[in-house]
Formats: sequence, structure tokens, C-alpha cells
Amino acid sequence: MKKRVLCMAVGLLALSTASATVAVAQSPQPTNHAEVASSIIADPKFKAATAVFDRDHEKIVSELIEITEIPSPPFKEKVRAEAYRKKLADLGLSNVEIDEEGNVLAIRKGTASDGKFVAVIAHLDTVFPEGTEVKVRREGTKLMAPGIGDDAKGLTVVLAYLRAMDEAKIQTKDDILIVGSVGEEGLGDLRGVKHLFQKGKYKDKIKSALIVDGGDMETVTNGATGSKRYLVTFRGPGGHSYGAFGLVNPAFAMGEAMAQFSRTQVPSNPKTTYSIGVIGGGTSVNSIPNELWMQVDMRSVSVEELAKLEKRFLEIVDRAVDTENNARSTKEGPITVTKELVGDRPAGKTDESNDIVQAVSAVLKAYEYKPKYNTSSTDSNVPMSLGIPAVTVGRGAAGKSDRSHSLDEWVDVEKGPDVKALTAGLAMLLSVSGMTDSSL
Amino acid sequence: MKKRVLCMAVGLLALSTASATVAVAQSPQPTNHAEVASSIIADPKFKAATAVFDRDHEKIVSELIEITEIPSPPFKEKVRAEAYRKKLADLGLSNVEIDEEGNVLAIRKGTASDGKFVAVIAHLDTVFPEGTEVKVRREGTKLMAPGIGDDAKGLTVVLAYLRAMDEAKIQTKDDILIVGSVGEEGLGDLRGVKHLFQKGKYKDKIKSALIVDGGDMETVTNGATGSKRYLVTFRGPGGHSYGAFGLVNPAFAMGEAMAQFSRTQVPSNPKTTYSIGVIGGGTSVNSIPNELWMQVDMRSVSVEELAKLEKRFLEIVDRAVDTENNARSTKEGPITVTKELVGDRPAGKTDESNDIVQAVSAVLKAYEYKPKYNTSSTDSNVPMSLGIPAVTVGRGAAGKSDRSHSLDEWVDVEKGPDVKALTAGLAMLLSVSGMTDSSL
Repeated sequence: MKKRVLCMAVGLLALSTASATVAVAQSPQPTNHAEVASSIIADPKFKAATAVFDRDHEKIVSELIEITEIPSPPFKEKVRAEAYRKKLADLGLSNVEIDEEGNVLAIRKGTASDGKFVAVIAHLDTVFPEGTEVKVRREGTKLMAPGIGDDAKGLTVVLAYLRAMDEAKIQTKDDILIVGSVGEEGLGDLRGVKHLFQKGKYKDKIKSALIVDGGDMETVTNGATGSKRYLVTFRGPGGHSYGAFGLVNPAFAMGEAMAQFSRTQVPSNPKTTYSIGVIGGGTSVNSIPNELWMQVDMRSVSVEELAKLEKRFLEIVDRAVDTENNARSTKEGPITVTKELVGDRPAGKTDESNDIVQAVSAVLKAYEYKPKYNTSSTDSNVPMSLGIPAVTVGRGAAGKSDRSHSLDEWVDVEKGPDVKALTAGLAMLLSVSGMTDSSL
Repeated sequence: MKKRVLCMAVGLLALSTASATVAVAQSPQPTNHAEVASSIIADPKFKAATAVFDRDHEKIVSELIEITEIPSPPFKEKVRAEAYRKKLADLGLSNVEIDEEGNVLAIRKGTASDGKFVAVIAHLDTVFPEGTEVKVRREGTKLMAPGIGDDAKGLTVVLAYLRAMDEAKIQTKDDILIVGSVGEEGLGDLRGVKHLFQKGKYKDKIKSALIVDGGDMETVTNGATGSKRYLVTFRGPGGHSYGAFGLVNPAFAMGEAMAQFSRTQVPSNPKTTYSIGVIGGGTSVNSIPNELWMQVDMRSVSVEELAKLEKRFLEIVDRAVDTENNARSTKEGPITVTKELVGDRPAGKTDESNDIVQAVSAVLKAYEYKPKYNTSSTDSNVPMSLGIPAVTVGRGAAGKSDRSHSLDEWVDVEKGPDVKALTAGLAMLLSVSGMTDSSL
């Protein structure tokens, strides 16, 4: 038996020598990911799976339309979740369920599990509110509808991978945890994956994660922009602008905070940013306001830099309140402030040298895609922040989708490029979860 | 003929010796206002006028209700103006008209005119928008309706003075210009009196002004709070809070302006104040805003201090914009700012020693009212700012009205105090415009 290295160890040295179904890279030298990719692509079972994509492409497109047309607004993913749960159950997967947070979960057992999972995650929610028209319009190979790319396409291709693997009788070494996550977008604040990795039954049991949520196969998101978002509200006693002049004014406290915040120095590498996006409050030009507020956004690819920035910001706010309370009279009451954390996405990174990034890249290169490393905010943020290797990969061909988060979102499912993307996507999944040697 | 001094010169030494109908204070020594007041009050014609108030009190109350129930929202005083014009015309006054701005004007000729007018002004507008229920509710002597005090009562008492003068055949030395002014309230920004004193046919022909717009006979408003109100809008290219970080942000320019403005030192005497009352703008927490704005209020009883404050504020805004344009990138466009003057009420003062203030005070004291000098924002602002002696006086008894600018505004027309207030009001008018000697 020629020794074939089809699996890889992610973030740890896997030593499942007990399993007869798998050949393991036991040497300290790094896995040759290009060789793994070639072996998968050359495997007869993999070729059989590819043929399924080709034969069933129109069915895959139909399923994309079906999923897209189930509305899935923020915090209201239930109907789409139930449909997705049923599809996974119909595939014969085990432990199919909807967890406490609303995530759909299912397990595809591996042949040499080490007790930990490779998670494959696509998200159920869209950015679109209830009542948004989600009927898909089709013009040739171009399909248009809100959310059709982000992330109905991700949910669809995962189903396609699983069906093709089943028909081609492809097995993996690792147990795969399939996840349809809730709350990836906006104020959802990654609540689905936060629950999954931090509270749910599989927490501490996921060793790596492949997030299928990139518009483009060439984009490999291995950096997680962390963000902290605050709604900061300054309150005071208010009063007549003339008659009560001399009393503390929330506008001056807030202005001081804004001005001091504007002087913050942040590194460009690791990229760290801050902004004040929305402000409001007050009732009339001739009244000292009772209440003013601002929405603040802080981001960094570095956990440490984000924490430093957040600390500085919170101190600035408190200091600005003190400054105003010392500058004017508090006899009718002082300025007070509430700092409400309305968004909290952890920063993180999976190093380019990490096996999961290298495995994905090698597959992409094998298909003549040019991987571009990227930093963004996706479900990967949570595992990355916990030190769990994760990468967000594409769900379709390069240049074949656009206008995410807009009402004229579209994807192009031209068969050639789409089947090629499906094929590469399955190869990535198999490289990460360890394709069991066909010859065994 | 015993020489009686019943008239006074306001702001100038009147020397109408040509007139046989009037005795003039020709000496350089100050007018004895107490003596003038006593003489008026003792005059048989004045007593006859007082009897008219007593006899016709219920008619005066009916006219107050009638005027109050003609809605007169800001910038929509036309219907009430037309009704007031008709009442003045029916009184047989001359030159009755509505001017280009909407003010109602009428002249009551004097017996020894120097070609200049004493203006008697009450305002037509209310603060209440179209559609506000203005039906008067009556509970005994208490009448409730929006605007009934401010300034329907002012309009009404002026009509009562004129009717009583006519019936009692009282003449004045000076020509009296009766004015129902528009735009006294809020964003009306004193447009009626601005037109009257600065543009209309009587500009430069008004030598003093009695504004009938005080809630209370004891309040003598001889100080005019000037105000400048600005809507300041900061605009920039906007962009993604993370992707476009480094571009100029209007929030930082505005925050800098707010903070610098908060450090402004203003004198407490002459009282000078500033406030930021309302702020807004921006679309989402994760976008650098395109546009933010603030409403700013600055006031002073001193023209010079208000001008200094305004200049400093405008410089602060410009400097804050420059600071932001220097602090961050303007490659997608710089921060720009517009400073829109949305309110401009001139400051001014009629000195307590001025004859008009002393004349009014002497009458009030004669009726055992206790005059309190006050600074406020009324139609008096405009003549005061031009150096024309003006004073805002009461339209009703002390403690007999409240809740101006609110829907539950009320006046109490209990006959005794109300007739006393009417009597004192007429005596003030006669003292200021020079009552022609009854004995002639």
C-alpha cells in the first residue's frame, strides 16, 4: 500500500494511529498541502462527486432559489432554520437539531474521529427586515434577490457537498459538525457562533472551522476584525438656554469626549480603527438638552489593540463627564453617562502559516484560483478569538456575485464556473477534515 | 391758567411750544413723572375713561375671547390681522392698513405732533401651530385657551384703551401708531417689528415704543436679550467605518467645535449665555457620517458681548473644520461646513433712568404696583437695539395669568383687578404719549 497523505492535522499533531482507515502525517515536518490537494483531486471517489455536481447543477440552483425565498430576517431565522434542519435530517445525518440559540446542527461521522469536530458553518440570517420581497428574479444564469449570495448560497453549497459525498461514498477522518448559524449579521452580533463555541454542547469540542461565507473563491479570510460598538448617552438636568445658563450641558460633555476621542492614535498594522457614526438628542434650540447620544464603532484585527482602544475610549468619556461637571454648576444635578455595549465581535487571526489556511490555499491554487488573504468580520471571528483555527472561504465563482446587503444582490450560476467552485469547495472541506483514503 | 405738566419728552427734549393745546416741560431739569402720573389720574376725562372700563368690562372680555378664537399660527397671522385691521378701522383711526410684512397699522393723530410717533405694539402671532384647538373655556372669571394671554390680551387691551379714550374725548400730544405685529414668537424672529423699524414707511419716524406683551403689570421689561441662533452642518465624504478609516469624519470636526465652544468665557453682567440644544445626523454605526448638525443658541443683553460671542463661535467652527482636515485624509473630499443663521434677535436696553421707563414706573407706583425691571426677548428688542426708547409693559393684573406657550394657558379677568390693570395701562400710554391738558 502506497502511503498517501490525505489528511492534515489542524492546530495540533493528530496521532490517530489506531485507525486503519487513515494514513497520518506523523513526521514533525510540515504537511505538504499541495500534495494533499493533488491526491484528493485525483481520487476516483472525488471525481465521482464532481460528476454529481455536473449532473445535478440545475437541482442545486433550484435549492438555492428555494432557500433564498424563505425570509430570514435578523433575529427571525426560525422558518429557514426549520427548513434547513429538515434537509439535513433527510440526508441521514445524525444528531440533527436546533440548539437553544437557534442554530441548526448536524453531525456527519468520520472514520477516525479524535472526538473533536471540524465545523462547517454557513449562516441562516440575512440583513433584510421582515416584509422584504425575497422572490428570486432570473435572467439567464443571473439570479437576483436579497440574501441570495449572503448566505443562502453558503447554505446551499454545503448541502451540495454533503449530497455529493454521500453519492460518491466519500468518508472523512474527522467528524464534521454542520452548522446553520443564526445572528451573523449586524446587531445579531455573531450570537449563533458565540453560543456554539462558548456555551453550547459542542463548546471545547470543535478543533477547526470552515466558514462558507465569502462571495468569491479567491478570498480567504484568515483575519477577524474585532469590533466594539457603544451607544453612549449623556444625561443632565436640562433647562432654559438663557434662564438656566451655567448649569452643566450634556452637549459640552459629549463634545469634549468626541474631540478627545478624535485625537486617539491607532496602529495601521495591526489595523485598528474608530468612528462616531450616528448622533442625536435634544428638543429645542433654546433648551439645554436633557439627553444626547452617540453610536461609536471601534475595530481592530488585534485583540490587544482593540482592548486598548476600548479602554481609552471609556476613560475619555468618563473624563469628559468630569470635566463638564467641574466646568459648570451641578446644583440641579450632574451630567451622568451610560455606556451600552451594543456590539462585541472579537478580533482574531488564523496565521497564514496555519495548516487550515495552507490546506485551503493549496486546493485553490490547484484549481488555478489566486488566494488573497483577507481580514473581515464573519462567523470566523469567534473561533479565531478563541485560538481555534478557522477560515472563511468562498461560496461561488470569482466575479460571479455582488451587491451583498443591498436589495439588488445577485449571483451568477453559469454552470462551468459554478461547478468548478463547488468542486474546489468540496476539495477544501475534504482537505481540512481529512479525506479517507479511497484505496483502503 | 395754572400750568400743568401732563406730557413728557421721551428720549429727546420736545419743544412744541407752538401748540396751544399743551404745556411743555422746557426746563433742563428732569420731568417729574410722579407728578405727571398724578395729574393724569386726577384728570376728569381720564376718570371718564376709567368709568368706560368699568361699564364695558364684559364687552372687553368678549372681545378677548373673540380675538383668542381666531387662530394665528406662526407665519399665518393673516385672518387675525384682517380682523384686527377692521376693528381699528371701525374705531375711525386714520391710515389703517396691513403692511408688506403683515403688520396691522393705524394712526391716532395727536394735538401737537412733532412728526414722530409713539408706537403702541401688541403681537398678532401665537406659538401654536395650525389646527390647535383655540376655543376658550370659561370657569367663572378664569378663561383658558392657547394664546389667550400671549398676546390676545395685549391686542384686546389696546382696543379698550382706544375706545375709552374716544368716548372720554382724550387727546394726546403725540401721534400714536397702533401696531398689531407679526412674527414675535420663535422662528418668526421679530420679523414684524424688524420690518416696522428698519424697512417700512414709518421707519425713522417712531420716537418711542410701548410694547403691550407682559403677563403682569409689575414686570417692566427694559432690557432686550439679543440672540443669535445657528444651524451648523458639517459634511464630509463619508465611508465605511473600517474600510475607509483615515478619512476625515464630520463627528470629529463637530466634537472639536463643541468642546472648544464649551470653554468660552462670558460675562455674567451683562448677562451672556450660550448653549447647544439639538444635534443629529449619521446613518449607521458602521459608517463614517456624511452629515452631522447642531443647533446653537447665543444670547446677551449686550450687543457688543453678543457680537464677540458670535465671532468667537464662528471662528471656533472654522478652526475645528481645519483641525479635522489636517488630522485625517481629504483624498475623498474635505470636511465642509455651513453656518446658517436661523435666529437673530438684537440685544438692547432702555436705561432705567430713561423717561419712558420712569413714566411707566411712576404710573405703576401710583396704582401701588411694584415695578420690577426685567430683561427678556420681546418686540422691544428691535427698537432698543436701534437706540429708540422702548419698554414692554403688562397686559393684565398681577398673578392673573400663567402657562404662556402651553396648551393650558389661562388668564383671570376678575373685574376689580382687571379694570385696575386697564386703568393703569391707559395711564401709562397717556404719560408716554403726552395727555393733552383737559383744562384747555
